[in-house]
Amino acid sequence: MKKRISVLGCGMVGSAIAADLSERYQVTVFDKSPLALQRLASFYPVETSVADLSVRQMVIDAIGECDLVINAVPGYIGFQTLETIIDQSRNVVDISFFEQDAFLLDELAMERGVIAIVDCGIAPGMSNIILGHHAETMDVGSFECYVGGLPKERKLPWQYKAPFSPIDVLEEYTRPARIVKDNMIVVKPALSDAEMIDFPEIGTLVAFNTDGLRSLIKTMDVPDMIEKTLRYPGHIELMSILRDSGFFSKDKIKVDDHWVSPLSMTSRLLFDEWKLHDGEMDFTIMKVIVEGKGKDHETRYTYNLLDRADVKTGFSSMSRTTGYTCTAAATLVLEDCFTRVGICPPEYLGKDHFQEIMDYLRERNVCFSVNQL
Amino acid sequence: MKKRISVLGCGMVGSAIAADLSERYQVTVFDKSPLALQRLASFYPVETSVADLSVRQMVIDAIGECDLVINAVPGYIGFQTLETIIDQSRNVVDISFFEQDAFLLDELAMERGVIAIVDCGIAPGMSNIILGHHAETMDVGSFECYVGGLPKERKLPWQYKAPFSPIDVLEEYTRPARIVKDNMIVVKPALSDAEMIDFPEIGTLVAFNTDGLRSLIKTMDVPDMIEKTLRYPGHIELMSILRDSGFFSKDKIKVDDHWVSPLSMTSRLLFDEWKLHDGEMDFTIMKVIVEGKGKDHETRYTYNLLDRADVKTGFSSMSRTTGYTCTAAATLVLEDCFTRVGICPPEYLGKDHFQEIMDYLRERNVCFSVNQL
Repeated sequence: MKKRISVLGCGMVGSAIAADLSERYQVTVFDKSPLALQRLASFYPVETSVADLSVRQMVIDAIGECDLVINAVPGYIGFQTLETIIDQSRNVVDISFFEQDAFLLDELAMERGVIAIVDCGIAPGMSNIILGHHAETMDVGSFECYVGGLPKERKLPWQYKAPFSPIDVLEEYTRPARIVKDNMIVVKPALSDAEMIDFPEIGTLVAFNTDGLRSLIKTMDVPDMIEKTLRYPGHIELMSILRDSGFFSKDKIKVDDHWVSPLSMTSRLLFDEWKLHDGEMDFTIMKVIVEGKGKDHETRYTYNLLDRADVKTGFSSMSRTTGYTCTAAATLVLEDCFTRVGICPPEYLGKDHFQEIMDYLRERNVCFSVNQL
Repeated sequence: MKKRISVLGCGMVGSAIAADLSERYQVTVFDKSPLALQRLASFYPVETSVADLSVRQMVIDAIGECDLVINAVPGYIGFQTLETIIDQSRNVVDISFFEQDAFLLDELAMERGVIAIVDCGIAPGMSNIILGHHAETMDVGSFECYVGGLPKERKLPWQYKAPFSPIDVLEEYTRPARIVKDNMIVVKPALSDAEMIDFPEIGTLVAFNTDGLRSLIKTMDVPDMIEKTLRYPGHIELMSILRDSGFFSKDKIKVDDHWVSPLSMTSRLLFDEWKLHDGEMDFTIMKVIVEGKGKDHETRYTYNLLDRADVKTGFSSMSRTTGYTCTAAATLVLEDCFTRVGICPPEYLGKDHFQEIMDYLRERNVCFSVNQL
């Protein structure tokens, strides 16, 4: 009998995950949008169920007796949903990228004997897996990650499309970014330290600080680590203006006699502006640089990825790169290859499963090039 | 006994009006902000009363038995307030710049025997008075008006401060602009036809279409008329982005479970950003060009105004130029110099009272230069 998977969330990434896993497993997808569920089910052999996953009991019902849960809900309900999943003693791979520290749930996961892989997308996710892999055989001195998911066609004014909830993107633009410099954690403002970087086939992009190191700060003993997000030039100038004028504030203000948060309003408006419409192509661009001392000499690995939307399936590149890293991890858990209980950030997978995951992605045409100096 | 005036609204412009009129008349000012009222009363001999002027009965109470009303409420409640004032048979000078056609109240004003001067600020206002004046003695072929109220210090990102409700400014940026070309009314999008114009002492500004002709379209038989607003370069690009992304929409959308309008939210946020703080200086810049055939030859009058904030009184330039045009008109009505009943746009004042009004402004150091070619 096929193993059963509950996929919570049928957004762009959740859909790609469910579609991939449905080839080998029995998949049920839950979302509050009947339309999104119906669309997915018309192309792939998945069961669907309409559910408001912001309600704990709905999550419990969705989990049921499944063998693994994929947590692909929006970030702002990610942590509460993960807690419920762990509390229900279900193994889980999480790509909700919530703000809270996942390790707060480590003890609960241990108690319940649950494998809970978190932050398992492209970045965070693959970036952690790459660093976790090299940290096994090298004395890593520095780690740099540059990553962005962008629309192929630049359209003014935003030059951006969001593969996931705009509210999660806007939070990336407000959350202070933690980097590691000379073994110290340094907190930088979001959108700071902007620099131009050229990428073959793509052109010049702007890299700026975002809070993407997350678990690596705790798990890795690397003196210098940075994570930067990539956008087309011109985007973060507008984002800075809106942020600095309060449009991303979570503090509710009184408008038309109601108390509402500017962030909710702004993400609601940008949702329409940033929607990747049918036929619009995106790409994922990523560069990871790991430097350190190998067996006897300094060495430097540079990973490059340029992945494009899949015209045939219609899955966006960000769905593919994020989703397939997640399904690679899910497969390792379901096939009993990865058995470490507790909260597991992706760097734990990198130790023993780096090559399997790279192969898994390559089979799906997500191909990293690697360059050793 | 001094004549009695009710000033409805104690914003920046209402305050300047009340202060000016209080030198010669008995003035009572009404506003919902006790702070604004208290501040004004601590410097000038005015009575004050806290009142919510969006409520009809409050307006009726405020009017009382006064000899003249100044309607200086925000634009969005301007029309309803004016209707109440006229219905109460009180002469009125209106600077609320509401969206509706004032002539809809002409019949009521006639019935009540009320003199109702509308749009009586700097522009609309002085611009109309200038055109009304020349139309008496010239066959005017074209009329151009360029006007802006701007902060002396340019600060990124907005480079703008609003002397009146930001919501009224944002409406100027959305309301389609009517111009007259070859005797035809042409409707242009707001913010369109941007062009750079150099001004002595100030530098290069951007002029763009706004719907400022208003009554002139109906009252003047001039083949070509345009009205453009002036801002620092860079401002309308941001405004266009926000407008085009729905941030200025009046249509309510659901945010945090409440239905609110993006325009309300945006103006609420920009209110803080655009506040002219104590000590911050502004200026009014205006150029009016009237061309046509005089007694026997083509002639062209160019009026220029560069007015700056009054450091001594603290009144901003926009309050001064808008407010003193209004108080000049108020004085003409109170002294029985202007007696035409019905809705009177300022061009009606220009016919017989142009020089008096120019002199009145000059006494208050609002000095136009005029150049005849």
